[in-house]
Amino acid sequence: MHYFCLMQHIEKYQKSFLKYLESFTVDREPKNLYNPVNYILELGGKRLRPILTLMAAEVFGETTENALDAALSIEVFHNFSLVHDDIMDDAPLRRGKQTVHEKWDLNTGILSGDAMLIMAYQLFENYDAETFQNLAKLFSKTALEVCEGQQYDIDFETREDVTIAEYLKMIEYKTAVLVGAAMQMGAIVARASVEDQKAIYNFGRLLGIAFQLQDDYLDAFGNPETFGKQVGGDIIENKKTYLYLKTLELGTTDNGANLQAFMSQSNLSNADKVEKVKTLFNSSGAAEATQQAVKNYTNKAFDVLETLQISNDKKQSLRLFGEQLMTRRV
Amino acid sequence: MHYFCLMQHIEKYQKSFLKYLESFTVDREPKNLYNPVNYILELGGKRLRPILTLMAAEVFGETTENALDAALSIEVFHNFSLVHDDIMDDAPLRRGKQTVHEKWDLNTGILSGDAMLIMAYQLFENYDAETFQNLAKLFSKTALEVCEGQQYDIDFETREDVTIAEYLKMIEYKTAVLVGAAMQMGAIVARASVEDQKAIYNFGRLLGIAFQLQDDYLDAFGNPETFGKQVGGDIIENKKTYLYLKTLELGTTDNGANLQAFMSQSNLSNADKVEKVKTLFNSSGAAEATQQAVKNYTNKAFDVLETLQISNDKKQSLRLFGEQLMTRRV
Repeated sequence: MHYFCLMQHIEKYQKSFLKYLESFTVDREPKNLYNPVNYILELGGKRLRPILTLMAAEVFGETTENALDAALSIEVFHNFSLVHDDIMDDAPLRRGKQTVHEKWDLNTGILSGDAMLIMAYQLFENYDAETFQNLAKLFSKTALEVCEGQQYDIDFETREDVTIAEYLKMIEYKTAVLVGAAMQMGAIVARASVEDQKAIYNFGRLLGIAFQLQDDYLDAFGNPETFGKQVGGDIIENKKTYLYLKTLELGTTDNGANLQAFMSQSNLSNADKVEKVKTLFNSSGAAEATQQAVKNYTNKAFDVLETLQISNDKKQSLRLFGEQLMTRRV
Repeated sequence: MHYFCLMQHIEKYQKSFLKYLESFTVDREPKNLYNPVNYILELGGKRLRPILTLMAAEVFGETTENALDAALSIEVFHNFSLVHDDIMDDAPLRRGKQTVHEKWDLNTGILSGDAMLIMAYQLFENYDAETFQNLAKLFSKTALEVCEGQQYDIDFETREDVTIAEYLKMIEYKTAVLVGAAMQMGAIVARASVEDQKAIYNFGRLLGIAFQLQDDYLDAFGNPETFGKQVGGDIIENKKTYLYLKTLELGTTDNGANLQAFMSQSNLSNADKVEKVKTLFNSSGAAEATQQAVKNYTNKAFDVLETLQISNDKKQSLRLFGEQLMTRRV
């Protein structure tokens, strides 16, 4: 499959997903419970996860139509987690618009989020009993891991001894398992073999880790003109990213002491702080190591592809999709 | 079945449930996510809902052992709703102990609650695919109704035109459907017929409405020495209970004006306010009408029992249980 052809496919997935989403976000009573649900679902976003579900279903010989409920479930869950995370992070904005708890209030954010988590399970109900159970089991396991990842993330804020291994587990749980589950759900709907299901899950999971590490890298070294968020945002907020932890691991004792000093100094301007910390990220070898880790996880994901019992053409298109995702500079 | 024998049965259900609960509340990582889950589950309570699941399972010929997972799911969900409701109500205490968000913090309350909702679904995973789907469907429908009931309850706080029909729907959703679902889950595990499932659901649902109306009545007219909560608490908090709404419906225009005046007067002592409002509840006929409504819903529940395809002995024991529940004066 060629690049152009892949992009056409992705556009097709996106279109059919958005049409299906439209039929889901209808007026329901009580309005104060369901309007916020529709609001967050209609805020936009790349719809990456549901597209992966549709793509995986088609790769394993199923129509995208039959995978729409599973795809929507993943997107509803993802948005549930955004609503509750935004409360926990006290975030005023999401995709440039007011967050649910800002537009309404705390209680609305909690309760509408709860409703979304339940609605995500309901979206499996049209599948036969066995498929239903397989989807719901994977969903529950994944959803609980996402909660655990969020908890680790919160715990790490007040810990000074976070290891690289712990950090990797945190991003795997908080972000990557949902990417893996999105793909496995497409495979479940397509009744792919358990081996293929596991492989496509791992493909998504490994790509998800690579994606998150890439995000850490771009937050510091991305192009300010094309990167969606403020470049250096993680540094300003003293986040313990992969770059930060690698600097402590690889750098000299001085590097580490300087890093922690810059992070705790309040008399530095944000711009100065970002510049100084980025210099440390480079001189310690952490920037280089992060790019290497992105490559390693991406390659591991591509290795897993080889084990799939599907045509080379399809492997090629999954690989192309992965490359697309990972060569972004934004 | 005699009263003594029924009490022995209930004690047996309670014991096996508590033993099973003990095996569930074990240490898990991350501790900051799971310790609050164990804390709220171990706070106590009557365990009424899981007992109903075990009882229904046995009535339809299933061992209580096979119904333990479904029973625990109902209890975990119930406690999830307590954790999130306590945040929304800003409640400092639950069963005389600190609420989760008080003992930990807001974020812990939200995230641990989310985890419990997911864990409740996971408890169905040991059942075969068809039973799993039946349990999870009923669970999702019920859980969403509980959210809707909570939203209506919040909406009613700032509305002056709540009708009796709306109030009844609110308590049905917020409280009664979970009692019905607890019983139907026992019936599902026992593979009872769909007709019997619906009937036992309605038995629980109607009894749940009766129970909640009784609660409204006892909050004003219960014996202060035996009633668990502060008598008159609803009046002090200006809650629009069945007694309140019935006074507006049945009373004279003066009754209604007086009621609303007492509710908005801040110079009345709580004791005076409670006395004056109780007098109005009586003189308007609302107290009498509430007792009558309790009787009507209880009788409707007993009528439904007659349609069940079970022995008269078993019907008798369910009836005895219902009578027990409804003749409480505490």
